[in-house]
Amino acid sequence: MSTTAFDTTAGTAPRGAVLPHVGDLPAGPRNAITDVAGVTVGHATLADGPVQTGVTVVNAHAGDPFTDKVPAAVAVINGFGKSVGLVQVEELGVLETPIALTNTFAVGTVATAQIRQCVLNHAGTGRDLPTVNPLVFECNDGFLNDIQGLAVTDAHYRAACDAAGEDVQQGAVGAGRGMSSFQLKGGIGTASRRVSLSGPTRKEDGTPLPAEGTAAGDYTVGALVLANFGKLPNLTIDGLRVGPTLAMKLAGLEQDPEKGSIIMLLATDAPLDARQLRRLASRAGAGLARTGSVYGHGSGDIALAFSTAYTLPHLPDRPMPTVAMVHETLLDGLFQAAADSVEQAIIHALWSAESVQGRDGHVRPALADLVPDWAAFARRLSGSLQ
Amino acid sequence: MSTTAFDTTAGTAPRGAVLPHVGDLPAGPRNAITDVAGVTVGHATLADGPVQTGVTVVNAHAGDPFTDKVPAAVAVINGFGKSVGLVQVEELGVLETPIALTNTFAVGTVATAQIRQCVLNHAGTGRDLPTVNPLVFECNDGFLNDIQGLAVTDAHYRAACDAAGEDVQQGAVGAGRGMSSFQLKGGIGTASRRVSLSGPTRKEDGTPLPAEGTAAGDYTVGALVLANFGKLPNLTIDGLRVGPTLAMKLAGLEQDPEKGSIIMLLATDAPLDARQLRRLASRAGAGLARTGSVYGHGSGDIALAFSTAYTLPHLPDRPMPTVAMVHETLLDGLFQAAADSVEQAIIHALWSAESVQGRDGHVRPALADLVPDWAAFARRLSGSLQ
Amino acid sequence: MSTTAFDTTAGTAPRGAVLPHVGDLPAGPRNAITDVAGVTVGHATLADGPVQTGVTVVNAHAGDPFTDKVPAAVAVINGFGKSVGLVQVEELGVLETPIALTNTFAVGTVATAQIRQCVLNHAGTGRDLPTVNPLVFECNDGFLNDIQGLAVTDAHYRAACDAAGEDVQQGAVGAGRGMSSFQLKGGIGTASRRVSLSGPTRKEDGTPLPAEGTAAGDYTVGALVLANFGKLPNLTIDGLRVGPTLAMKLAGLEQDPEKGSIIMLLATDAPLDARQLRRLASRAGAGLARTGSVYGHGSGDIALAFSTAYTLPHLPDRPMPTVAMVHETLLDGLFQAAADSVEQAIIHALWSAESVQGRDGHVRPALADLVPDWAAFARRLSGSLQ
Amino acid sequence: MSTTAFDTTAGTAPRGAVLPHVGDLPAGPRNAITDVAGVTVGHATLADGPVQTGVTVVNAHAGDPFTDKVPAAVAVINGFGKSVGLVQVEELGVLETPIALTNTFAVGTVATAQIRQCVLNHAGTGRDLPTVNPLVFECNDGFLNDIQGLAVTDAHYRAACDAAGEDVQQGAVGAGRGMSSFQLKGGIGTASRRVSLSGPTRKEDGTPLPAEGTAAGDYTVGALVLANFGKLPNLTIDGLRVGPTLAMKLAGLEQDPEKGSIIMLLATDAPLDARQLRRLASRAGAGLARTGSVYGHGSGDIALAFSTAYTLPHLPDRPMPTVAMVHETLLDGLFQAAADSVEQAIIHALWSAESVQGRDGHVRPALADLVPDWAAFARRLSGSLQ
Repeated sequence: MSTTAFDTTAGTAPRGAVLPHVGDLPAGPRNAITDVAGVTVGHATLADGPVQTGVTVVNAHAGDPFTDKVPAAVAVINGFGKSVGLVQVEELGVLETPIALTNTFAVGTVATAQIRQCVLNHAGTGRDLPTVNPLVFECNDGFLNDIQGLAVTDAHYRAACDAAGEDVQQGAVGAGRGMSSFQLKGGIGTASRRVSLSGPTRKEDGTPLPAEGTAAGDYTVGALVLANFGKLPNLTIDGLRVGPTLAMKLAGLEQDPEKGSIIMLLATDAPLDARQLRRLASRAGAGLARTGSVYGHGSGDIALAFSTAYTLPHLPDRPMPTVAMVHETLLDGLFQAAADSVEQAIIHALWSAESVQGRDGHVRPALADLVPDWAAFARRLSGSLQ
Repeated sequence: MSTTAFDTTAGTAPRGAVLPHVGDLPAGPRNAITDVAGVTVGHATLADGPVQTGVTVVNAHAGDPFTDKVPAAVAVINGFGKSVGLVQVEELGVLETPIALTNTFAVGTVATAQIRQCVLNHAGTGRDLPTVNPLVFECNDGFLNDIQGLAVTDAHYRAACDAAGEDVQQGAVGAGRGMSSFQLKGGIGTASRRVSLSGPTRKEDGTPLPAEGTAAGDYTVGALVLANFGKLPNLTIDGLRVGPTLAMKLAGLEQDPEKGSIIMLLATDAPLDARQLRRLASRAGAGLARTGSVYGHGSGDIALAFSTAYTLPHLPDRPMPTVAMVHETLLDGLFQAAADSVEQAIIHALWSAESVQGRDGHVRPALADLVPDWAAFARRLSGSLQ
Repeated sequence: MSTTAFDTTAGTAPRGAVLPHVGDLPAGPRNAITDVAGVTVGHATLADGPVQTGVTVVNAHAGDPFTDKVPAAVAVINGFGKSVGLVQVEELGVLETPIALTNTFAVGTVATAQIRQCVLNHAGTGRDLPTVNPLVFECNDGFLNDIQGLAVTDAHYRAACDAAGEDVQQGAVGAGRGMSSFQLKGGIGTASRRVSLSGPTRKEDGTPLPAEGTAAGDYTVGALVLANFGKLPNLTIDGLRVGPTLAMKLAGLEQDPEKGSIIMLLATDAPLDARQLRRLASRAGAGLARTGSVYGHGSGDIALAFSTAYTLPHLPDRPMPTVAMVHETLLDGLFQAAADSVEQAIIHALWSAESVQGRDGHVRPALADLVPDWAAFARRLSGSLQ
Repeated sequence: MSTTAFDTTAGTAPRGAVLPHVGDLPAGPRNAITDVAGVTVGHATLADGPVQTGVTVVNAHAGDPFTDKVPAAVAVINGFGKSVGLVQVEELGVLETPIALTNTFAVGTVATAQIRQCVLNHAGTGRDLPTVNPLVFECNDGFLNDIQGLAVTDAHYRAACDAAGEDVQQGAVGAGRGMSSFQLKGGIGTASRRVSLSGPTRKEDGTPLPAEGTAAGDYTVGALVLANFGKLPNLTIDGLRVGPTLAMKLAGLEQDPEKGSIIMLLATDAPLDARQLRRLASRAGAGLARTGSVYGHGSGDIALAFSTAYTLPHLPDRPMPTVAMVHETLLDGLFQAAADSVEQAIIHALWSAESVQGRDGHVRPALADLVPDWAAFARRLSGSLQ
């Protein structure tokens, strides 16, 4: 059983926790989406009695997302969701704003905040320039958060943008503040995997190949999830079905059908076009399934993947990129990295999240409180299952 | 050349105009989407100097759209658009709110207004009940309207809801107030077609068929469009390319690429399921093409179709409907009605819209001023083309 | 660790094997797709030196599939595949022929055989009647089978149809004869799950609900897979990653990228429409992921789901069905059953398949030879991983 | 009314016919898909009593389509069709074989012929190389052709390949031999349009732009259609609804619902990726709609677009292309060219096709016999409509 030292970088995880490491690929130095160079993450967290919610922002690069658009694509694994901006991403294959995450009822407010931000940067937006496509993902944090209170404002979106950096807090922060996952406290999780794509070194006729132009190389895939899905009895960690055992520990679990969701963002520095990024995004579903999800009816399970390897200029007054994309037959390494980093990010979200009490006395316990020592717990459980 | 008397029912069209009647199918009594029984339309119009915008609402029935969901489906013909709510409609095949239309930057505000409306009607929304899926379509009215002013508020959405009725004002009203189409004044248009679906009267073995259960019957298809698309040189009315002639009449037409869009809503009382409604919605593209559109890159061309023949209960505490859907082989009549009513609705939008002056002295002329007598104009133009 | 007695019903599995039982739902009496009443399966197997291939046929009911069409839908999880007939299933949501499975190069031959079969049954096919939509799924069995030999003929398709019955042989039979999975012998596997959908028993106002019409009830979901995917190091059985251990046992495993595929058929007696069946089909991807797949680039991973609860008449000379579909909020049980039965069917395929030697001395070993006693193997492996 | 001299280049059209020229864009020198450099077309025609069918092949370039794959994408406008190969084109965005067109029941045979062709060229196909993805489009020519006779063989596919060249015969040739369109004789039609994409000449800050790298340039879009769709009363030529007048000329028109289809192939030398090509392909639907189609239920209306601007190597042993794609905002010219060339190609198909008598005395009249002088006919009809 492979494990890895865990450090949430100023996050909320219990010091010294040792968690399972999913798969064989190594993590990047931060084990975070920000291992993809240029990517930053910021949170604004609202935690005040019945208000337990927030905004999280992911930037693909440090520049202007409107003038230098990164290629992107969406995979709607289960479309019970209210995210905005997906129609245009599917058609045009680019991002135009930071990616925002928040609660379901704050989507309109945050979308308007993104419009204001673009107008501020580009006075012609919606006038002589086209309009901008807000991109806001959401999950319903209504179990802990008084979602009807509509507490998120324009200022929270801006605060999350201002807070963006390479260190990623995980757990009950930002958009993850009020989220539940497997009837435990869920929220933000992140992880990364590094993969070396090696093509052939010789042509079919035996002559040696130059390294350049063959699309081989070392790349990073990073995932950031907003985990708000799952029923506890189904929880599976690194292949071990821990849910039933944990469910016995918790009295009074509600029997409602799942009303959650998960948003799965994937970043990579591998040069992929939008069609290839859609393929990458759909592999998030494989990582998700391994945690015990069957993409429940009421769970909006949506993935988005973007590449930082090049940008597309807003206007044709600058040259289009001339980048060799990864050869299709070399994608498997990236697919593995996508699935593994998503599963790992879900594990990080669960173990990073502290217990939170929200509206009407609702409480979600922290997995880190229930299972402070994963290795011992897993050993015991494996033994009892035999 | 078939024509039809035109009456916008308290709208803005020039009295006595006689317009082409698209196709062979008869219109319903109102030649409006409200010919589908139960459907109502309401507008809130903002017309004050640089503020030329609004909200339009379409209700599928008089009841609660959340508890009694009508089946629906979307066809994204060109996805350069910021409409919200489509992901869930595609997954679940139902509407949960009134359908709202507005300008691009007001989408967030109107979506939040729809959430508030649902919470008001159902206190458990987002708590013990699932969240609600706002459904807001948009076009960019930024040529006439100071779109950056974000003038639309929650109150305008409610006012449009309150104003809903069977009489449909057309042209520069509601969401159509600031819209441009073919560089003329565009906006709201509506039309309807009646179709009689006749299946076989005998079985294959020759025995007579009972009328019931064979899915034959008389049905109505109604269209409502928010027309904000097109370059004038391409304008084609009932097959006659009038654009170049009209373009010569107007000095100083901007040469910008198209930045418009069109939203096309289709209602029918024919019993169709969501899969069939998606097929119906996609036929809106045929009607649109006949007006001179090739679904321009920057034009968000989106269609949605719904049926009023039955509803689906929000919770499984009431029986599911047991309705015989229209047999697939009888759909052609409905497809023809969809294409024809969309083309007719675009014609209505153009001829109903009065000239509007908006921000920065921008003006869109009214087609009714340029072509007060269609029949005479068409006769003259046909002659000159020969 | 739950296990279940295993009986391939005249199949090729080692007598007395005890295999893991995936999930909490009970299997049907046969643990096979034929637990869905009316469904039958037939094989034609070609096993002669370098020819190791075949045809498998699944019938949705005993009647004529052309005149009484069952509702169906497809989920293309990874579209690196050459299956035919999917375009029309996606548009019309029905099947018109038996479902055929075969090798990649035999698709054309079997499609033509299906056309001949329909012409034989309906002399007007393609004349006064429309043409028929052949439906043939495929995987590439070229490692064991001399696929270039094009050995499958019209007669083999007919033989598979003639052999159809409720007892399902598994493993290296029919279309599965030459298939490889996880670099072991793969092929045909089947399984089923029973699920009780229970809606509320009282209305929101507290009055008791009649049982009928609430869509609740007991249903079966059955899966049949053609397993030809996977790299051995990734193999995961019931959450336990057995691949690396098994890979050490086998010398000389080829290092090629995956060139496999998996076809996953799902049958249910629950009344679902085509939109709901698409949702069900996509859950096959969750079951697949749990076995270690990340939907590899070169793996055509395709699922199809159909319902036997009603049929749609070919012509509108018979009434359309008036069936209450399952309420959307009750689908989770069926989704779980779909994922679990697909994972179980893959396990059955692997353990049922005998070792096969094919072209050019290529051999695929049988998992049942490597792991004759699952429980002991799993116990040992769990211990060593701790 | 713009018209153009018409020359089918050794085709079957009446000498000296002058046909309407659709739109404002100029045609290429051949007014054919082969105006896109490198594209060739070949036919094999079977015309013998009740056998009236054939095969048409379109090559994207003169090289090996398997080792040098052109980018491509599909738009399924109405999926009532049995074409094969679309699933993989949608996933991978490339062609691997010549594009073949034939009758509905010959799809299997031609797909197998394509496999044989690839095996002949690449001995490892399906062994150490992956399998090949056959790509065969079809329409049902069963009104004239004894489709049940399965007359098309492997040799006909090879003959069509051998006959491929830059001169394109139109009308009742190749796969078009037995096709009907608007209850007249249909078949193969082709056309092209040239378009000059001009981006800005100065940057936003006013500095002049270098010509290179801005994606501007002169490009060709070519269309080839297999026209087998439409009911005569709906026929519309260049905006003029000629159908009702023509229908009066023909006694005994069958009243059956449409059972046709149309395949629309688009080639371009503009550098587009697969996502952009899907956008281009969908514009075929606009050209189709202008001829009077509403994408009838029973009509398989499918478009495919490919670019010849670059190829993708089969294996990663050669560099991937580093080509600047056309900037998204410059696509409108190509979209217009796609719609116009498809409409023009349908007109060419109708006027090129000679009258054919097929099985059971069935006859389809030639439009060129009914309307030998388009200009005079259009003048007369326009006058009478006023």
